[in-house]
Amino acid sequence: MAISLRKARTIIRKALDKGREMDLKPLSVVVLDAGGHVQAFEREDGAAPGRFAIAHGKAYGAVMLGMAGTAQMNRAEDQAYFMAAVNGVYGGQVIPVPGGVLLRDKKGAVIGAVGVTGDTSDNDAVAALNGIEAAGLTGEI
Amino acid sequence: MAISLRKARTIIRKALDKGREMDLKPLSVVVLDAGGHVQAFEREDGAAPGRFAIAHGKAYGAVMLGMAGTAQMNRAEDQAYFMAAVNGVYGGQVIPVPGGVLLRDKKGAVIGAVGVTGDTSDNDAVAALNGIEAAGLTGEI
Amino acid sequence: MAISLRKARTIIRKALDKGREMDLKPLSVVVLDAGGHVQAFEREDGAAPGRFAIAHGKAYGAVMLGMAGTAQMNRAEDQAYFMAAVNGVYGGQVIPVPGGVLLRDKKGAVIGAVGVTGDTSDNDAVAALNGIEAAGLTGEI
Amino acid sequence: MAISLRKARTIIRKALDKGREMDLKPLSVVVLDAGGHVQAFEREDGAAPGRFAIAHGKAYGAVMLGMAGTAQMNRAEDQAYFMAAVNGVYGGQVIPVPGGVLLRDKKGAVIGAVGVTGDTSDNDAVAALNGIEAAGLTGEI
Repeated sequence: MAISLRKARTIIRKALDKGREMDLKPLSVVVLDAGGHVQAFEREDGAAPGRFAIAHGKAYGAVMLGMAGTAQMNRAEDQAYFMAAVNGVYGGQVIPVPGGVLLRDKKGAVIGAVGVTGDTSDNDAVAALNGIEAAGLTGEI
Repeated sequence: MAISLRKARTIIRKALDKGREMDLKPLSVVVLDAGGHVQAFEREDGAAPGRFAIAHGKAYGAVMLGMAGTAQMNRAEDQAYFMAAVNGVYGGQVIPVPGGVLLRDKKGAVIGAVGVTGDTSDNDAVAALNGIEAAGLTGEI
Repeated sequence: MAISLRKARTIIRKALDKGREMDLKPLSVVVLDAGGHVQAFEREDGAAPGRFAIAHGKAYGAVMLGMAGTAQMNRAEDQAYFMAAVNGVYGGQVIPVPGGVLLRDKKGAVIGAVGVTGDTSDNDAVAALNGIEAAGLTGEI
Repeated sequence: MAISLRKARTIIRKALDKGREMDLKPLSVVVLDAGGHVQAFEREDGAAPGRFAIAHGKAYGAVMLGMAGTAQMNRAEDQAYFMAAVNGVYGGQVIPVPGGVLLRDKKGAVIGAVGVTGDTSDNDAVAALNGIEAAGLTGEI
């Protein structure tokens, strides 16, 4: 099961909608496939220019490690040098905080990840989940 | 004048529509702002996983050099070592071929660029222009 | 359809067997998944130490671009600066010659790639195909 | 004394067998030679796509420093900036935790390393040792 562009669009739109509903700061949302490659991305007007890299880093680490943002953050809190080393082998492309949400199919296989950035990490994760559920998928924050 | 997310979406959708109308291979389209930063991106189902980097490279070179893809290609044909050196200073992020289209406002100032990849470079540029014109902007291929 | 470890092992063993049968130099064989990530690799005794990177580079470019080694080589012959630029955006990880063989499923979707190195590029591709066919898959050289 | 491909295969198979016996998460196992170069690698079905880099990082640091994963971890706990600096000179390719197991010959010379990842670092090391012992070698965890 792959993430179609149609589903990726739904995830992004509904994550952004949630941001507007909650009156969050401008959000940026990326959807990566099961190989960690970019399927779709949008940055809201007013967001800082560098937000693609942050959204990407949250989702990329989730796919590559098979570990969602919260689990990555816990590992970074416990063993900072380990997550620093992980970033080394992944070319510095991992942002280990909530807002990186794993997408799993019904059998539990990882089919991609969503990365949201712009507000607090916890609010970013809420917006991501809203988009993921609207697309009929299950997210692990 | 900035590229709003609304306009970026129009550019992408209409570029993809053109690809379907012309029966091109699956396309990937990125829109960068005036600073060369990603505003929006979509990759059609069936496109190769690495297409974000190619689309980005086409548009990034255009913004950073203020030179569209065709002009970059001509320079590469004439003086390959120059474009290789340009890639050195830009971290290897430039793909100097058509499909990287500069966006200019009415006074001629660069406000961003569009990068399209998936079919031949010339067809990629045609698809990009279709999206740009649908958004009421002017493209330089 | 994913490449299982069982199939990857078959590909590698039968590619190496073909090399022994043809009396080729020691071979190295990598199998990448549809996202360009390493599934399995073996380097024969007597092969040079750096062969992983060559095998990987042949297969990685094939997956990321959706273009097999022969097509990449033709593009490099026609437009050397383009393949050089592609290598820039992919972090210098692409070796554009035969021996990078695309794996497609019955519908034509890319499900991974095999990279073989050690002998001539053409012989490398023959060994790769032998492994791929033994695993019941179709290769594009 | 080098690690033959035959021995590398035994190490990997028996490490994976141990993982199944202990009901660990899907494992990935790499064998590096005395120069830190990849000899063989396998990633079990269901493992995250980025596991090659983690397995490699565990084994690579072990060979390059002549120091097994546990010793590296202790050094990182005591002096995090030292291991960070080590990663600088080795291009960010070192993961300093258990699961990186040094291989020594009977005279104590380092002949390579095994890297295992997928479960807890301690379980990864147990699986590695099982493979190493099955191949008639001695591992230092």
